[in-house]
Amino acid sequence: MLAASSVFLRPLRMIERIAILGTGLLGTSVGLALRAAGFHGSITGWNRSPEGAETALSMGALDSIAADPFEMARASQVVLLAAPIYATLDWMEKLSGVLGSEHLVTDVGSTKVQITAAAGRLFNTPTRAAFLPGHPMAGKERGGAALGDADLFRGAVWLFTEVPTWERSLVSSKLVKGWREWVAAMGAKTLDLEPARHDELVAWVSHLPQFVSTAMSALLEEKVGDAPELKDVGGRALGEMTRLGASPYSMWRDIAHTNTENVQAALLALEQKLAHLRENLRTPELRDEFEQANKFRRE
Amino acid sequence: MLAASSVFLRPLRMIERIAILGTGLLGTSVGLALRAAGFHGSITGWNRSPEGAETALSMGALDSIAADPFEMARASQVVLLAAPIYATLDWMEKLSGVLGSEHLVTDVGSTKVQITAAAGRLFNTPTRAAFLPGHPMAGKERGGAALGDADLFRGAVWLFTEVPTWERSLVSSKLVKGWREWVAAMGAKTLDLEPARHDELVAWVSHLPQFVSTAMSALLEEKVGDAPELKDVGGRALGEMTRLGASPYSMWRDIAHTNTENVQAALLALEQKLAHLRENLRTPELRDEFEQANKFRRE
Repeated sequence: MLAASSVFLRPLRMIERIAILGTGLLGTSVGLALRAAGFHGSITGWNRSPEGAETALSMGALDSIAADPFEMARASQVVLLAAPIYATLDWMEKLSGVLGSEHLVTDVGSTKVQITAAAGRLFNTPTRAAFLPGHPMAGKERGGAALGDADLFRGAVWLFTEVPTWERSLVSSKLVKGWREWVAAMGAKTLDLEPARHDELVAWVSHLPQFVSTAMSALLEEKVGDAPELKDVGGRALGEMTRLGASPYSMWRDIAHTNTENVQAALLALEQKLAHLRENLRTPELRDEFEQANKFRRE
Repeated sequence: MLAASSVFLRPLRMIERIAILGTGLLGTSVGLALRAAGFHGSITGWNRSPEGAETALSMGALDSIAADPFEMARASQVVLLAAPIYATLDWMEKLSGVLGSEHLVTDVGSTKVQITAAAGRLFNTPTRAAFLPGHPMAGKERGGAALGDADLFRGAVWLFTEVPTWERSLVSSKLVKGWREWVAAMGAKTLDLEPARHDELVAWVSHLPQFVSTAMSALLEEKVGDAPELKDVGGRALGEMTRLGASPYSMWRDIAHTNTENVQAALLALEQKLAHLRENLRTPELRDEFEQANKFRRE
């Protein structure tokens, strides 16, 4: 039993040097969650704005700030890209020639078709670094290192979109396994999906809720924005349904650009469903829709 | 100071016998909240299904169950109608001839134009009972006495739609004032609105969120209902945006029937907003919508 257990732990234990590229909400939360899960190696960070890195450092998510992100990446075993999608794609281009088969690069981007395609083109040969495309289904409506949270991933699903044909060095394969174990140690449930299926699924269960909340918040700002006391009237229900209205365009622009068709399909389907409810407020069809909705929320 | 304070308290202290007609989630919660706020008089209840009344009694929301709702109403000073809207309108018809100027009837219905009109027709003359149309903006996605909660109204807004021309007896005017004070004592913030304005406002801040959540839940049940593991992927955001999907048709039917035009206008406006987002996922218009939404959620 002991032997089996130590074999199981080896990939996790072999990771001793992690670099976090981008110390916003997710990057900082990963640093904090790794520490809380018992990671004793080094966590170095770099951030476009130095203030974000300083905040992450002061919170204990990092133990040092790197001056040069490329040197930092080369000196680490695992590089976590925790940036918006287009910035992540940029870093992939820049890092692929700099790193080798002793490295693993992974990310937290919200759409995976483009990133996974780039991973196949730029990484994942026996002589190059491994790339493990990842997507933790966790976040907050506001970003920034200061909101970093060691418990952000507890109970959340962390999706991966590896492609079976990738060939990696033995070391980088072990780093992939090790990172997956750390993700589980942070409290997340891992799930593997094919990249196109990933992007379609998240359009429905993640991007649709965001765009609906943005639409409702924008609409209500036009309707009652000049009467703040009326916002209180909505209570908990309105608060929940518009919470994501605080989410920043800067993050969602890249998602809208890289998952356009899937998000359009989900939005159109919801528009049609709302029109159906609107036309049937006084017919028995309304009961069918409530019963269908009740099924989704059955416990 | 003492004199002023006792004058202020008199209407509240004069209420000693309250009857709750309908001991579902709201009726039971009012009973519990009254006790928690220090109401020491009698609270008698009646419920269409005896089980609901038994549960409310066992939780301490009532101190007795009435066999006859009319006798119960006559023996009390304040009758709280805590039933769906059409049932409330029925009780108003049945009670108006039975009660007199020593009584106050109030309610918790979610639309107020029809109920307030009935109150003007059936109550609120010097020889008849007073009727105070009320609407606590609090609830849960599932109903029933067992979910009753003494804190349900804490921090919530409790709307009233009294009409200035109503003429009441001195006693019933004092009972109205006393009930308003008990509502405040339960932790709610009271706000008075003109009935048509009420129904329009709640269509946007309360009914729209419900129908959107029902639509999203019904749509997602069709899309991923056969793969429960995929619901987890959506995480907290999806959970919040579909929580109200569990709400029962039995309650929302009356709202859909009595606030049809306002709800239709709100749904149509949201459909148009979603279409605008869908057509602008890759244009700078998307930024404007996110910024408008951010304004609604500014702190």
